Amino acid sequence: MTINEIPQTAHPTAAILIIGNEILSGRTQDTNIKFIAECLDKAGIKLCEARVIPDDEMVIIETVNILRRQYAYVFTTGGIGATHDDITAACLAKAFDVPLEENAETFAILQNHYKENFNASRQRMARMPQGSELLKNQLCTATGFKIENVYCLAGMPSVMQDSFTLLLPSLKTGTPFVSNTVTCNLREGDIAQALTDIQNARPTVEIGSYPFYRTPPDIGTSFVMHGADPVAVTAATDDVIKMVEHYNGTFTIDRF
Amino acid sequence: MTINEIPQTAHPTAAILIIGNEILSGRTQDTNIKFIAECLDKAGIKLCEARVIPDDEMVIIETVNILRRQYAYVFTTGGIGATHDDITAACLAKAFDVPLEENAETFAILQNHYKENFNASRQRMARMPQGSELLKNQLCTATGFKIENVYCLAGMPSVMQDSFTLLLPSLKTGTPFVSNTVTCNLREGDIAQALTDIQNARPTVEIGSYPFYRTPPDIGTSFVMHGADPVAVTAATDDVIKMVEHYNGTFTIDRF
Repeated sequence: MTINEIPQTAHPTAAILIIGNEILSGRTQDTNIKFIAECLDKAGIKLCEARVIPDDEMVIIETVNILRRQYAYVFTTGGIGATHDDITAACLAKAFDVPLEENAETFAILQNHYKENFNASRQRMARMPQGSELLKNQLCTATGFKIENVYCLAGMPSVMQDSFTLLLPSLKTGTPFVSNTVTCNLREGDIAQALTDIQNARPTVEIGSYPFYRTPPDIGTSFVMHGADPVAVTAATDDVIKMVEHYNGTFTIDRF
Repeated sequence: MTINEIPQTAHPTAAILIIGNEILSGRTQDTNIKFIAECLDKAGIKLCEARVIPDDEMVIIETVNILRRQYAYVFTTGGIGATHDDITAACLAKAFDVPLEENAETFAILQNHYKENFNASRQRMARMPQGSELLKNQLCTATGFKIENVYCLAGMPSVMQDSFTLLLPSLKTGTPFVSNTVTCNLREGDIAQALTDIQNARPTVEIGSYPFYRTPPDIGTSFVMHGADPVAVTAATDDVIKMVEHYNGTFTIDRF
């Protein structure tokens, strides 16, 4: 099969924008990229890049404007809340050049939840760029929003995950990507040429090679076969298994 | 103290570039950003952004050229190895518009290590952009390299960490950043105005507020005070502790 005979699969594109000084200072291990990336992959949406930027107005505005014009979807996390460092909504209003205004639906939800504790700081959380839609979650009232193709989610993983799971069915999806991993006890340098031959014979499958050195001496390589054509991914996986067997390796396999 | 009276502290800037399809597909949880970020923070080097991009020649070249011109240091991880998907060295040569050539020192180290198994694929690992310096590590012979202000490291966390720890003393550093975290049982919406007042009074300290909702119902907020002036960070931390006490909260504190 040549590249021209490959069934065309349309994959909407996406970028993730992690807004958070706490990631750039090394204080916090980000887990939001992995969660969103995995969901997008299964939905057949191609995640083209992820960026981590500081809580800096100019940087947020510039980066959002670059990404939203380049990709079908942009997912931001962080800066959604009641404190002075929560500036995502204000920055998005500036990025889209629209006023920041109180969203009536959000205001009502927050007021009903907080009642007598619905103070001025919490009322700030109802402010969104004009034209935004509220993104709900089931865990709390901290609310994200969507404006055009940009989805602004909380930074807290549990809240972000809940919001993202609720919004995912509304996205235009593509042919789902599938992925198999073959983990073996061979060194990648020993099979590199054979693996190149498999890659060349399977151009629709992205084959990655990830060596590992673990203690106690446990050296080997994981091969990942990833693509939107399950038949081709399976065929490439079979090729890799035959290669491992040919080199007298032992292996395990995970299919997703 | 006004902003003009703040002692000037010079902080070299940096960006991290994670090269890896396995992160963008959600298969792998990146931990390299956190490790490098934490080391840079302690060294007083300001990490301004991190990006995750695919194993795509054009994207790698373009992104390296943007970042290396914008920041004092760029640290890349991934794509250093013997297989077809290891294209970092070739891309860097194109980004710097220099030939990709065999590095004699690297070739000798690899040859000595692999002996009769030093095949053509492994010899590829000795190829680096002209003008590169080898970056050593103590774990294996997979070798990173440095060209001008760009440091290309392995993606495997153990190897990357070892290389990074060895290269860190060679970097121009700044006044180290310090960070205190006060974790309390208050909701951020209740203290948001008081926290804003503290932030306004301590402009040299970056104060972050991170609410958490854990199960069993364990709701609260972590406040992070971060900056290069330890006296100001301590003062802001004391202010936050007083605020938590004023609101009858209980707290723990971590100082770094």
